[in-house]
Amino acid sequence: MRQTLTSETQAELIRTAHALADAARPVTLRHFRTGIASDDKGSNAGGRFDPVTEADRAAERSMREVLARERPEDAILGEEYGPKTGTSGLTWVLDPIDGTRGYISGTPTWGVLISVADEWGPLFGLIDQPYIGERFEGGFGRAFVQGPRGRSDLRVGPVRGLEEATILTTFPEIGTEAERAAFRRVADCARLVRYGMDCYAYALLAAGQVDLVIEAGLQPYDVQAPIAVVTAAGGLATAWDGGPAHGGGRLLAAANPAIHAAAMELLAG
Amino acid sequence: MRQTLTSETQAELIRTAHALADAARPVTLRHFRTGIASDDKGSNAGGRFDPVTEADRAAERSMREVLARERPEDAILGEEYGPKTGTSGLTWVLDPIDGTRGYISGTPTWGVLISVADEWGPLFGLIDQPYIGERFEGGFGRAFVQGPRGRSDLRVGPVRGLEEATILTTFPEIGTEAERAAFRRVADCARLVRYGMDCYAYALLAAGQVDLVIEAGLQPYDVQAPIAVVTAAGGLATAWDGGPAHGGGRLLAAANPAIHAAAMELLAG
Repeated sequence: MRQTLTSETQAELIRTAHALADAARPVTLRHFRTGIASDDKGSNAGGRFDPVTEADRAAERSMREVLARERPEDAILGEEYGPKTGTSGLTWVLDPIDGTRGYISGTPTWGVLISVADEWGPLFGLIDQPYIGERFEGGFGRAFVQGPRGRSDLRVGPVRGLEEATILTTFPEIGTEAERAAFRRVADCARLVRYGMDCYAYALLAAGQVDLVIEAGLQPYDVQAPIAVVTAAGGLATAWDGGPAHGGGRLLAAANPAIHAAAMELLAG
Repeated sequence: MRQTLTSETQAELIRTAHALADAARPVTLRHFRTGIASDDKGSNAGGRFDPVTEADRAAERSMREVLARERPEDAILGEEYGPKTGTSGLTWVLDPIDGTRGYISGTPTWGVLISVADEWGPLFGLIDQPYIGERFEGGFGRAFVQGPRGRSDLRVGPVRGLEEATILTTFPEIGTEAERAAFRRVADCARLVRYGMDCYAYALLAAGQVDLVIEAGLQPYDVQAPIAVVTAAGGLATAWDGGPAHGGGRLLAAANPAIHAAAMELLAG
């Protein structure tokens, strides 16, 4: 059974999530668009180049310090420093810099991903883009973006068919050869496919700008905040087979059930 | 022979370029991330979908009004409303929204491109990203970015080999099949290739973040402001064969002559 949380607890979790994002912002920005060192973390979906920067590690440390102070009883799953157990039944899932390739290239499409989950998945999440100064949040009845043009509601776009749809993905060639072929079946039916947006893609789905985000080879910390934000904005986010997505792997996020079903059918072959 | 311009004239042209960008900003933003209508302009490099929005047209009109008032003797080449002749020997080259696909997808990588050229090419140019509030400028001895983190100099990055390089391009598959094969020869030697950045790619090259930008199927209004900004930051921008690039077509922009030569050789096959 999902955690039953009082409105006071929900408010505290929301405050904490924002405090985490506030703590990470200056740390990630300190090294952004400077001559940072990066090292190669090894294997990933593309198999080539997955740098971990000092900023990545320092930003996670800054968030863990906030949690040690504010929510010591919660568990933590972070990209850089692994899991910490807890006693509350709640887990903070942290990706200090999602889109490290984008980060080292200077693009403004990486983000800090923060979510709080129970064992059934994320309850509330943030996608924060520090350079633009833009924060997308969703869960506990909230779905907002706060950015350079002020605050506005997040709401997925109108229902339209795949032939009118825009799809976002990070890589032109997703995951394995079979995954790539599956992706192409959907992409070939769509009006427009765009690449390279990292976690910003989910924010644009939640903001009603695009219809589908399709990714593969993901980790839990890559997906949980996006799932919370997309769901809160009225969309769906599942595995490619329609099952739960919060464990990572292959993610299909969609603006509505109709286009989700159409994409899922094509992905299945 | 190139125009000999007094420092007063240069200052006036710089002021005018900023006035044009200031005029275009609110117009492009009025329709950004709203339910805009778009229509299909027809053929382009990718051959699929090249929307022209009302924002595109309105932004060019707003810039032409400024030029009619401030620089009536100059010629204009704009994406939306075609050429206007002039008597001064100077031409304003305007792309009100470069990256219309990015614009309608809500990404922050489209830009307003503004440059002033004589018949040998651009003298000064701006790449403006209205949503982020970021403006890259280069020429007449200037190379700056003014953005959310204040103002800083633009300077290309350090010399490094292709095997350490990051390449940006808009599309995974550039232009024709032959162009695609040529691009792949360079991409396969690089450390990292990222897609989907539109004109923002040139800004990141000028800012020292990436080493190469390779594109094809371009128009003069797509390239002139980028050429000015990249060149002012210490980089090079030529056609794939090393010739002048300001007429459009295939563009190779590079951080330094060594990597430019390496890429040019691979592009030639």
